[in-house]
Amino acid sequence: MTVRAPGAPPSRYVAVVGPGEGATDDDCGAAETTGRLLAQRGVVVITGGLGGVMGSAAEGASSVGGLSVGVLPQADRDEASPHLTVSIPTGLGEMRNALIVRAADGVVAIGGSWGTLSEIALARRTGVPVVVLGDWTLRGPGGLRPVEHESSPEAAVDRLLRLLAPGGD
Amino acid sequence: MTVRAPGAPPSRYVAVVGPGEGATDDDCGAAETTGRLLAQRGVVVITGGLGGVMGSAAEGASSVGGLSVGVLPQADRDEASPHLTVSIPTGLGEMRNALIVRAADGVVAIGGSWGTLSEIALARRTGVPVVVLGDWTLRGPGGLRPVEHESSPEAAVDRLLRLLAPGGD
Amino acid sequence: MTVRAPGAPPSRYVAVVGPGEGATDDDCGAAETTGRLLAQRGVVVITGGLGGVMGSAAEGASSVGGLSVGVLPQADRDEASPHLTVSIPTGLGEMRNALIVRAADGVVAIGGSWGTLSEIALARRTGVPVVVLGDWTLRGPGGLRPVEHESSPEAAVDRLLRLLAPGGD
Amino acid sequence: MTVRAPGAPPSRYVAVVGPGEGATDDDCGAAETTGRLLAQRGVVVITGGLGGVMGSAAEGASSVGGLSVGVLPQADRDEASPHLTVSIPTGLGEMRNALIVRAADGVVAIGGSWGTLSEIALARRTGVPVVVLGDWTLRGPGGLRPVEHESSPEAAVDRLLRLLAPGGD
Repeated sequence: MTVRAPGAPPSRYVAVVGPGEGATDDDCGAAETTGRLLAQRGVVVITGGLGGVMGSAAEGASSVGGLSVGVLPQADRDEASPHLTVSIPTGLGEMRNALIVRAADGVVAIGGSWGTLSEIALARRTGVPVVVLGDWTLRGPGGLRPVEHESSPEAAVDRLLRLLAPGGD
Repeated sequence: MTVRAPGAPPSRYVAVVGPGEGATDDDCGAAETTGRLLAQRGVVVITGGLGGVMGSAAEGASSVGGLSVGVLPQADRDEASPHLTVSIPTGLGEMRNALIVRAADGVVAIGGSWGTLSEIALARRTGVPVVVLGDWTLRGPGGLRPVEHESSPEAAVDRLLRLLAPGGD
Repeated sequence: MTVRAPGAPPSRYVAVVGPGEGATDDDCGAAETTGRLLAQRGVVVITGGLGGVMGSAAEGASSVGGLSVGVLPQADRDEASPHLTVSIPTGLGEMRNALIVRAADGVVAIGGSWGTLSEIALARRTGVPVVVLGDWTLRGPGGLRPVEHESSPEAAVDRLLRLLAPGGD
Repeated sequence: MTVRAPGAPPSRYVAVVGPGEGATDDDCGAAETTGRLLAQRGVVVITGGLGGVMGSAAEGASSVGGLSVGVLPQADRDEASPHLTVSIPTGLGEMRNALIVRAADGVVAIGGSWGTLSEIALARRTGVPVVVLGDWTLRGPGGLRPVEHESSPEAAVDRLLRLLAPGGD
């Protein structure tokens, strides 16, 4: 169990965000690997607490004894992933997306949906580092908006943890 | 003053969203026109309550005696636009973006920023009609994601109010 | 209409809180008077947006052309009081009680319920002046906890507005 | 570590609420015992994540390898208790009190403060069972309002877990 010892450096928290019902098998596979890799490096995995990308990331974390937290849109735990260490019903609906981003030191986004895009945008808005898996083009009236992009969970986790390191690039 | 008479059909509420500090003069001009046009059609204008696009939309609404509401990120009113009819400090920071979208029957987005994109995405996620002014390309792993686009405030307001009408297209 | 003129001092906002369904006729009468008196003094009345004490306070404010805002627990306006100038659906359930208190410069509590008590407590916790109508005894392990008490709407409004005045007692 | 096994009955979550800075030594001692007893019975302990009663309850849970979650008022973890398994910064200020109550199946309140009273009231309002340690008298215009009262942590935990059991009294 990757609970930090007294005196150990504070845990880092990374949100793995992505679609629930619309997630593809590839998305879920990538999410499980991402959750596992994060947990193996002592990171607490935060998700939206449901299925699809969220449930797979939690499953990956729990498969190696790591901690994962699900911040649920509902006011109860009925639809919570069974792989979570801790679930937090909020009753906030999609407003909980902002809570996930706020509670995270960094974000990995896997697969695409409007909810996922809201989390990427909120993270960029509030200065939380984000790495996306998969091709995103986000271009608005203010110009091209690049986001950090990687094509494998291993590379995404490496990139994000470098960004989170003290003095990270 | 466009307060609805007893027995009148319920007011519609439209959020005008866009950047504060980074807004261009063109953005602000378009926002003022949009706020004015909405108020002239009896719509309550909701914004994030600060300056830039938000303040200009409120100014447009107030210029014709309309109602506008500002849902502020701060816990006090110190930075509220002076053009608001009513200001609501929330202390929620960017989490208040979701509250703006939730309180709106429809959204007009003007100009571009990560905060604006979060509001577009939350609206699309929760089924609130959105019309954007300006060029956005939002493409993710799940394919191209079109949003309703218009090139003038007049066309944007017309399009949105048609979408909000009973049986709207 | 008590909209403030450009250059006028900023409006004050006072929340009138109390039960919806369980409100007595006396509660509702006192709430209507309180809403009216506040509006006559240029105050924007904030409520929880539903019936009972909330609806009566909004009705009192609207009877003299004042502004009232309802911060609804639901995510839509279906149950909003018809007397509101502006309604804000939040989808926050009882969590919106904290938003009401935060948006208010002061609070008048009328009648008793657990929801009302939560608002009194949150206001006292965050330093927002509160005046209660009716007999409350709130005694906990830390000692007796007095709240400002008055027995008529007139006295409650006078007392609260004195507390809110610059250098208020 | 009391992580539930696959197929095990879902964990219960109990919030231990009470003052931070104003907590007495007796409050903190009772909170530590309460946290420990809850964790020994497989319950996840939820707190507001800071010191005083909150930190002592987390310490009690961690002393026996249990899980505790802190739902922080701040937007960062700087003031989080070092005894938490998981901390959730919210940036909600006192609005997070409602989130603590919502995430809990039941509440034990220890010591007295306005914040604690807001949590007792929100729990009663939303039907979440509460047991208080210490003498509270909460009387309002609607009559006397009894809350379940016990004088020791052992009795409070027993009482609450009986209330939470299927068919609990």
